Order: sequence, then structure tokens, then C-alpha cells
Amino acid sequence: MGCAPMGHVLYDEAMRYNPKNPLWFNRDRFVLSAGHGCMLQYALLHLAGFDSVKEEDLKEFRQWGSRTPGHPENFETPGVEVTTGPLGQGIANAVGLALAEKHLAARFNKPDNEIIDHYTYVILGDGCQMEGIANEACSLAGHWGLGKLIAFYDDNHISIDGNTEIAFTESVDSRFEGLGWHVIWVKNGNNGYDDIRAAIKEAKAVKDRPTLIKVTTTIGYGSPNKANSYSVHGSALGAKEVDATRKNLGWPHEPFQVPEDVKKHWSRHIPEGAALEAEWNAKFAEYEKKYKEEAAELKSIITGKLPAGWEKALPTYTPESPADATRNLSQQNLNALAKVLPGLLGGSADLASSNMTLLKMFGDFQKDTPAERNVRFGVREHGMGAICNGIALHSPGLIPYCATFFVFTDYMRGAIRLSALSEAGVIYVMTHDSIGLGEDGPTHQPVEHLASFRAMPNILMLRPADGNETAGAYKVAVLNRKRPSILALSRQKLPHLPGTSIEGVEKGGYAISDNSTGNKPDVILIGTGSELEIAAKAADDLRKEGKAVRVVSLVSWELFDEQSEAYKESVLPAAVSARVSIEAGSSFGWEKIVGSKGKAIGIDRFGASAPAGKLYKEFGITKEAVVAAAKELI
Amino acid sequence: MGCAPMGHVLYDEAMRYNPKNPLWFNRDRFVLSAGHGCMLQYALLHLAGFDSVKEEDLKEFRQWGSRTPGHPENFETPGVEVTTGPLGQGIANAVGLALAEKHLAARFNKPDNEIIDHYTYVILGDGCQMEGIANEACSLAGHWGLGKLIAFYDDNHISIDGNTEIAFTESVDSRFEGLGWHVIWVKNGNNGYDDIRAAIKEAKAVKDRPTLIKVTTTIGYGSPNKANSYSVHGSALGAKEVDATRKNLGWPHEPFQVPEDVKKHWSRHIPEGAALEAEWNAKFAEYEKKYKEEAAELKSIITGKLPAGWEKALPTYTPESPADATRNLSQQNLNALAKVLPGLLGGSADLASSNMTLLKMFGDFQKDTPAERNVRFGVREHGMGAICNGIALHSPGLIPYCATFFVFTDYMRGAIRLSALSEAGVIYVMTHDSIGLGEDGPTHQPVEHLASFRAMPNILMLRPADGNETAGAYKVAVLNRKRPSILALSRQKLPHLPGTSIEGVEKGGYAISDNSTGNKPDVILIGTGSELEIAAKAADDLRKEGKAVRVVSLVSWELFDEQSEAYKESVLPAAVSARVSIEAGSSFGWEKIVGSKGKAIGIDRFGASAPAGKLYKEFGITKEAVVAAAKELI
Repeated sequence: MGCAPMGHVLYDEAMRYNPKNPLWFNRDRFVLSAGHGCMLQYALLHLAGFDSVKEEDLKEFRQWGSRTPGHPENFETPGVEVTTGPLGQGIANAVGLALAEKHLAARFNKPDNEIIDHYTYVILGDGCQMEGIANEACSLAGHWGLGKLIAFYDDNHISIDGNTEIAFTESVDSRFEGLGWHVIWVKNGNNGYDDIRAAIKEAKAVKDRPTLIKVTTTIGYGSPNKANSYSVHGSALGAKEVDATRKNLGWPHEPFQVPEDVKKHWSRHIPEGAALEAEWNAKFAEYEKKYKEEAAELKSIITGKLPAGWEKALPTYTPESPADATRNLSQQNLNALAKVLPGLLGGSADLASSNMTLLKMFGDFQKDTPAERNVRFGVREHGMGAICNGIALHSPGLIPYCATFFVFTDYMRGAIRLSALSEAGVIYVMTHDSIGLGEDGPTHQPVEHLASFRAMPNILMLRPADGNETAGAYKVAVLNRKRPSILALSRQKLPHLPGTSIEGVEKGGYAISDNSTGNKPDVILIGTGSELEIAAKAADDLRKEGKAVRVVSLVSWELFDEQSEAYKESVLPAAVSARVSIEAGSSFGWEKIVGSKGKAIGIDRFGASAPAGKLYKEFGITKEAVVAAAKELI
Repeated sequence: MGCAPMGHVLYDEAMRYNPKNPLWFNRDRFVLSAGHGCMLQYALLHLAGFDSVKEEDLKEFRQWGSRTPGHPENFETPGVEVTTGPLGQGIANAVGLALAEKHLAARFNKPDNEIIDHYTYVILGDGCQMEGIANEACSLAGHWGLGKLIAFYDDNHISIDGNTEIAFTESVDSRFEGLGWHVIWVKNGNNGYDDIRAAIKEAKAVKDRPTLIKVTTTIGYGSPNKANSYSVHGSALGAKEVDATRKNLGWPHEPFQVPEDVKKHWSRHIPEGAALEAEWNAKFAEYEKKYKEEAAELKSIITGKLPAGWEKALPTYTPESPADATRNLSQQNLNALAKVLPGLLGGSADLASSNMTLLKMFGDFQKDTPAERNVRFGVREHGMGAICNGIALHSPGLIPYCATFFVFTDYMRGAIRLSALSEAGVIYVMTHDSIGLGEDGPTHQPVEHLASFRAMPNILMLRPADGNETAGAYKVAVLNRKRPSILALSRQKLPHLPGTSIEGVEKGGYAISDNSTGNKPDVILIGTGSELEIAAKAADDLRKEGKAVRVVSLVSWELFDEQSEAYKESVLPAAVSARVSIEAGSSFGWEKIVGSKGKAIGIDRFGASAPAGKLYKEFGITKEAVVAAAKELI
């Protein structure tokens, strides 16, 4: 209720959008980072004429199957750009949206045709301001000089636990000035409409820096007994107080009834929005005539339609190719794909030279070189993930990737989960994926991370074993535009194994070698990533002793789960209970694959600081252990 | 190498410690937040005479079994206070250490005997500064006025990817002033020893605010060819450059050889440290004579010895006790324990009234009321976790707890993992533990979180079902001082079930009801937390149809795993393959419990916004589903 004036000025005056086509490409983007106040956004979408929020949707607030869930969800409600609620995510998403605009404008605008030109607006509250992710993202926004990012800070001094005095007494203004933002203070946010208008005008005039408009408001403004109190933070006013508030504000209308004059006032947004889009479509038609090549690229970014034959760019390997770390093979893929995918851009959280993520044909995306595609995120994993969500949700054809050590997904899990939930097809390039990283020790060695992501819905956890599997992982990741992918990649060198293939990866699990007949191997050895090599070597030994051994690469459990029962039976026949898995990670979850009678070789403790070879030996992740386990089971 | 002067002044002049007793209670604490520079700390510990780092340990840097791992680890190397490496954690731990000092000093110091009085020093780098967790923790340090926290910011302008200009151009000074810190700039950190000394003096004089001493240094100072370059960030210089550096610095001594005059200079720390501790021990003896009661409490905090009979304070319940949410039962436990555990303190990330974590007998820990025990963390989950790690590692008897919604463990997983690795017995009070929270929707509903923590080493994941189990969970959590515990607690009301017990929880899994004989039930129903009730109701139905049914509560998989094979067989007999589990979370991992032939009822997709009852029904987490599955298996 305190944010209503900001919302009103934004949706009724400042923002350019087309209610009948929420996906019109050049629309201004709006993010409600303080997602718990989503009823305001639903009301504004309704007033503005979006079909996604009809009167009946408002009445179904927070109910099963409704388009008005408890927090804004882009996948439920057209007109909502990103999914917010977890605090701090929205402002970081907004930085990603503004980055995307700045990047695309720099790449595609021409002196005679500025085809990309929109603002990104965001409302955030005290809760968002306290979250570290917000500081990370806002530091980058200042660094990048995202002048078209305009953030309203709803300074209402109230969070769930009471007055912000109890935990939040910093000077937000000083901090944001330190972060390189332009800061404006609107002292009367409850009804200072003209001040809000003036602030937006000032913010637009500052082109080299993002702007924070601090708007001092009263939470629950208008409620005579509950305004300025934490009791209205995430809770309804209650029938009695709603009545009192109506009286106090002089609002005689029925619930959900929009008075005719208000309806009439807002009704202009439908024709105005249609006109805005028509004008832009004409502009795009001109652009297409004059700048054929650029228009084709831009169209691919706008529609998400991948260029024909892009997958031919994926590198292929043979067992004779030089052994290499999958992080290096990943870089070969990224660089090959950058040539054919106009929407591919990304970078690392200060580990580009370890994660191997630099695109060699491009420079750095920076304040003065925004057309470039290597993004330098600094040591800000959580902000990085959320910024990539913003980029992915800006345009169907933008394919952001981001990178750090696999263990540091722990720092960005909030953002990764939102990639999965909000259907943002971010590619997570996660290197140093096991104890195989060696000397950096247990703080840097992931153990439980593969299992933790296999348990997460709507995300692909991929652990390729060599060159062809890395290419396969990229093929899958690029094709899955509504599902993020995590690629777990090795620091250490790995051989290219006979039998691996892109097609195999697409199925999630497949046999890379087999000397059995009739789908009845004596034993099935199952590995992923760097341990597939160990499984293959163990199979060689066992075969020498006359055993019929199948080696299965289980590169993605999710993709394998999605195969037909017949296919799964052809890879892991139910009748064969002699199964040994090997993976340098927690054995948690592997019972599903190896069954009650099988054996899962893994590491169910933290790692240690020592050379990788020593660690594998000490922790028993060895060919000998596989052979011994197999012999016990046969 | 650029930090050497700071390190030298700290360990040789500023800090008070006893090398022969690294655990002397009133020692100054030091945290190397930039943990990758740990060789500096090892060298200083060696020079100062700590037995943990002998010459041979220095030579075994980053080797298997050594006490000089690749990053500082408190559990490997006495003298190291906390485990660092993951950036930003150390500075947040330091805030926790300084909080602990301020709290204990306020509680225990007397006008004639200031028994608690030490500083907390920390060195952090650009990487730490970029991390959101650091901003969260430093905002709180400013808010709390932690005057005895002195942080050195190694301003070397280099991170792994190159010059910080590429991603870090904010004004750190302005930001920290905004956060309420005193900021000092030492311009010549490479050899400005007097400036460093003066800065420490100034910092100590500022008693109402923490101090950031920005020390401008050159990374790899002294190396003629690699100084001021990212190539020395996490990598060794190489033999050739080491030689050149020795020449450049005029250092003729052999590797690892400490010249006699240096040895002599540093040798005074052993007698001086012994004297410091002896003096303090005498002071404590006086304190004990005069302030018997306080001394007993303080002793418990210093030693970690829990007061005799503390567990009698745990509340007990009967099936007739009123149904309640386990988050409320948790609050009853916390308040009961606060009366008997002098070291219990903690709070929530702005959700105290939802997480039910307020200790009613105490006020808020604030700048001017630091003796109180309710800590208000604001919306800063990651900082909260790391601050609690610092509190836990300050004193064996401090028992910090912290709280948020279970789903937001995603925001603090980096800190939680370090609790587990560094043996910090933090209690994580995580409420709203499933889709049962209802209307807030999928952004707030954990699904994969139970599985993700069951896969993590050295942490107890506990999901109690009612009052007695919640008390049992607290008993386990309090007793496990070297292993953190996560309590997953319900928002919704739950009945007190017949058969639940504290003793059962201590075993991790146990039968709460059983009408079978000879350890041969027809079917075993297994539940956790809020779904144990559903399992119990399904059992009632099945028993009415004449079936022999055992209901098992699997409140902690880790504890159950630790029981004897005989006990496990008595609960889950191998011969009984008819097993049905029910848990409102991912079914990932449950194959281990229900076996290949059993059935795991769970939710393997994201939740939705709707009333809880509706969600349970729509997602099939129902008694009817359990009964149907059981009948199929019997």
C-alpha cells in the first residue's frame, strides 16, 4: 500500500508496454524484488489490461491453479518478468535485464535505428537491501554503468521482525554512492506523486550510472490501526481493518470493483500499447531491410530459434585425441558455440582462467565496451547466478553461462534454484568437480553436490567424462532453454574413451562398452565423469578374466529417467543385480541405480589437501576397488 | 608476501596469545579470511613457537596428513581459529568471534575484574570484499558497534582474473563508512610498519565502531618479475623466481632456514605467552572466589562441559497434549534450554516471529545491551550462518542457534557446509519445512533440501514429528558440539503421536507402533516429521483389515546409520521388503531405505501456492496413497 504511488506512476505513466502482448520485445521491464507485495503488481497488471490477471484471478489470490500465486512467478503470470520472493533475487535479476538491454543495444543499434531501447525498473525493500546478493549485483551495476536501471527503494523502516532499527542501521545512501550509483531521496512516498515523477526524470537524465530512488513510505499506508507496523508485512489486514482503511481513504467501492472513472483512465493502455508495438514493428521492418545480417541475429535472440545447423559446430574427438581436462574441453565447446550462437555470453566469478570460460573471439563486456560477450562477475557467485537468470529471461535467445568451482554452487544455490523454478536456461559451468582438484583441500572439494542437484527439480545435472561427452552436455544444455544445466567438469586430465558419444549423453545413460550377449552381462560397471575411465579400466581387467562386463556412463540421471522403460531396461536390465558404481562424490542416492544388492563406490566424508592421485588412493576410488566389488557380486 | 608486514606486526607485536596453549581462553583471535595466503599464517605460527607448525610441517605444505593444508583448517592446525578459503567466510566468522567477546565481556566482566578482554583481528582481500556475505556480516558489525574487531583489508588490486579494475571499482571506503565502520588507510603496506602500528593504535582508540584498515600492498611483493600480477594469486612463484626474489630482498638463507637473530627475536613469545596466561589464570582464580555463580557459568562456557542434569529441562509431551506446530514446540525447547544452558544464544534472519526463536527471558543483543541473548540478524542468512560458526568456535560452551525458512538454507549453504567441516556445533532451526507452508508458494517450499543435507558429511539432518521428537532433536543437537544439526520444523499443527520418544530420536530411527510378532511385519511404513502422522493413520487403517504393520520414524538418517547392525535389523529387517515411505520432499535417496521393491511417496517437482491441505491432496501425500502402496506390496 505504501508502494502504490510508485506502482501507479510506473504502470500508468513511465513504463512502455503492450498489455495484449506481454512479450513485446522492446517493453520496459519491471521487477518487484519485494515479491511478497505481489498483490500490488497483480492489481496494476489488471488495471493496465493484461489478460493474465482478470478480476477472477485477483479473487483467487494464493489458491491452487490460480495466476496470482503468493509471490510473482513468471511461468504462471504473463506480465511478470522474473520469479521473486526470495529476497535480493529480484534486484539482481534486474541487473541482468539491464545488462541484456545495454549489451543488445550496443550490438544492434544503428545511428539511424535504435531498435533496442528500454528501461528496467525495480522496487526493492529493506529485506532485499540487507541480502548480500543485492550488494553483489548492485556493485556490478555500478561498475558496468547501467544507466537505464532505475531502482525504487521502498524505505518503510519495517521488516517482519519489527522496526529496521533492530538490525539495519547502515546508511544505504552512502553505500550506494560507494557502489557508483546515483541516489535520489523522495521523502514523501505515500502521496508525493510529483516527486516520484521528478525522480524518474532525473534518473533518466543520468546515463552513465544506475539510479537508486529512495522512497520513504509507510507500510500499510491508509490503514488507520496497522500502518507502520510489522503486522502488515506478510499478512492480510483482516476484514475489520480493511473496512476501517476504506473509510480512512474515503473509498466507498465494493471489493474488487474498479470504479468506472478509474477503468476509463487506465483503458488507454491497451490502444497505446498496441501502437507502441506497431511502431516498433515498423521500425524493425526497416531495420531488417537495411541491416539484413544483424536483423537475422537479433531475430534469433528475440525468438529463441537457434540458427540452423548450429550443432555441427560442436567439436568431436576420438580416443586418439590428446587427453585433456573436461574444463578445457568445455572451453573448446564454448568457443566453437560462440561462433554460431548469437545469444551466447557469460563468464566466471573471478575464475575465468581456472574455469576456462573466456571466449577468445570477444573482449570483455564493460561499461564502455558493452557489445562484448565475456562478462567479468568478480567474486560474486550468488549475484552472478541471479544476473544470468535476468539475462536468460530477457530474451528467449540469450544463452547465459556462468562459472565457478563446483563447490561454490553452495554460494549461489538460491539463484540456481530460481533458474530451475523460473525456467531460465542458464548454463552453469562448474569446474574442479571432485577431490580430483587436489591440494586446495576440503573447503574446495565438492562431495555432496552432485547428489544435492540430482534431488532438485527441473535442472539437468551433467557430468561428462571426456570430449564427446562434454560436447554432448553442451548440446543438451543449449537445447534446454527452459531448464538450466549444470556441467560438472574436471580439473585433471582425462583420456577420450572409446564408445562415448553426443547421442549417448542425450539419453542420459548408455553403454560405452560391453562384451556380453543377450542383455545379460555378469556385472554392470557404472561411472560418471572422471571415474568413467576407472570403470573402463576395471572392465578391461575383468574381461581378461573372462567376465562379461558392461560399462555404463550415467552422465545425467534426469535425462536417463526420461527414457522409455525399454531403453532403460536395455542399459540396466532388471535381472542383472550385480552392479558397481564409481563416482568421486557422495554415494547418497546411488542405491536407486545399483539396487539393494549392488555396491556404490564413493566418498562419504570431506576430502583433504593432497595431490589428487594420493586422494583417490586413500579414499579407495580405484580400479582395484571396482574389480574387487565386482568379483564379490558376480 | 604483501601481507607479511601486517602479519608480522600482528603476531610479533599486537596480539596476545600463548603459543604453548593455542586454546588459552582470553587470547586475541586472528582470522585469515583470505585463506589462500595460509602459508603466511603457518610461517607466523611457526616463528611464534606453536607446536602445530614445525619446520617439517612447513615442508609438507598441502600434502596428505600434514598440518599445513591448502587453506587454514582449525580442525587440523591448533592456532588456526576457523576454517577459511571460501571467500568472505572468514570476515563473517570474525564478526562472530567479536560478538562472542562483546557478549561474554558484558555478561561476566566486573568493575574490579575484566576477565574477558580480547581483540579479534582479521585480514581480508578484494575477493572477500566482493562477496555478499562479507557485506552482510560487516553491516551487522557496524550495527552492533563491535569496537574490538579490527580488519585489515589487503588492498592489492589483484584477484585471480587480473586487475580488480575489471570487476571491482566501487569505493570500499565509502561503503564501510556507510556500514558504520571507522576506516583508516595505510598507503604503503609493503613496508610501512610504523603506519600499521599507528593504525592499530587508532583502531583500538575507537571503541564504539569496528575498524577497517585499508592497507595498500603489492601482491607478491619482493618478487622482481611476478609482483603485482595475478599469476601469484593462488600459484607458487616457481624455483627460478624464488631465487630472483631472494636476491631482490637480500635474503641469503636456505629455504625453511630461520636465521638465528630472527629466531631469537621471536623466541620471547613462548615465555611471554606463558606469563600472559598465568596472569589471566590468577585473575580467574580471584574472579572465582568473588563471583562464584558467574564463574561457574563462565567455566561451563570455557570448557564446554554442560551443566549436570541439563537434559531434565527438556519438555515432555503425551498424546493428550494439544496439537502444535513443531516450530512452536521448538520454541518451548529453546526457552526451556536457555534456563539451563549458559552458552545458548541465537536468533533469526528477520523471521523470529515465524521461526519462533525468541528467548522470552532475555532481551535483544544490541550495541548497548550486549549481555542479552536474542540476536537479530536481519535478512542476512549467509552472514548469520558464518557469524554463528564464529560464535561456536570462540568457546566450546557457546551454543549458537540460527533460524530462517528451511528453503533459505540455499542462501547460507556455504556457511552450513563450513559448520560441518570445521566442527562447529551450530543448531540450525529451519521452519516451514515443506509444501505444508502453503500459500507462499514454490519459492518458499523446500523440496530437495532434506536430501541435499542427508548427502552432506558431518551434519545431522533431523526432522522431528511432534513434541517428544522435537525435544529429542534438541537433546541430540546440544550434545553434538562438534557436528552441526539442522532441525526441519513444520509451520502446520501436528498431533503428539503415541510411541514417539527422546530415546527414539537419539537412535535416528525407531518403531513408534507395531502389531507384528517375530520381527516379521507384513509391511513397514516409514515417515518423518509431519508425515509420520499420515503413516500412523495409514497403519490404523491397514491393521483394521488385519495386517501386521510397523510404523517407523526415521527422524535422522545419520544417527540411524550409526546404530549397530542388530539394532538396524530390529527396526528394518532385511527380510521385509514391503516398505512404504512418506515424506513431503524429494524421494531422492529413499531407495536406500525402502529398497528396490519398496515405494517412496514424495514430491519430485516444485510445489505451488495454495492452502496446505489442498497441496497434500494434489501431490498425493496422503493416507490413501500409503494404504494403496502398502496393499500392492503385501
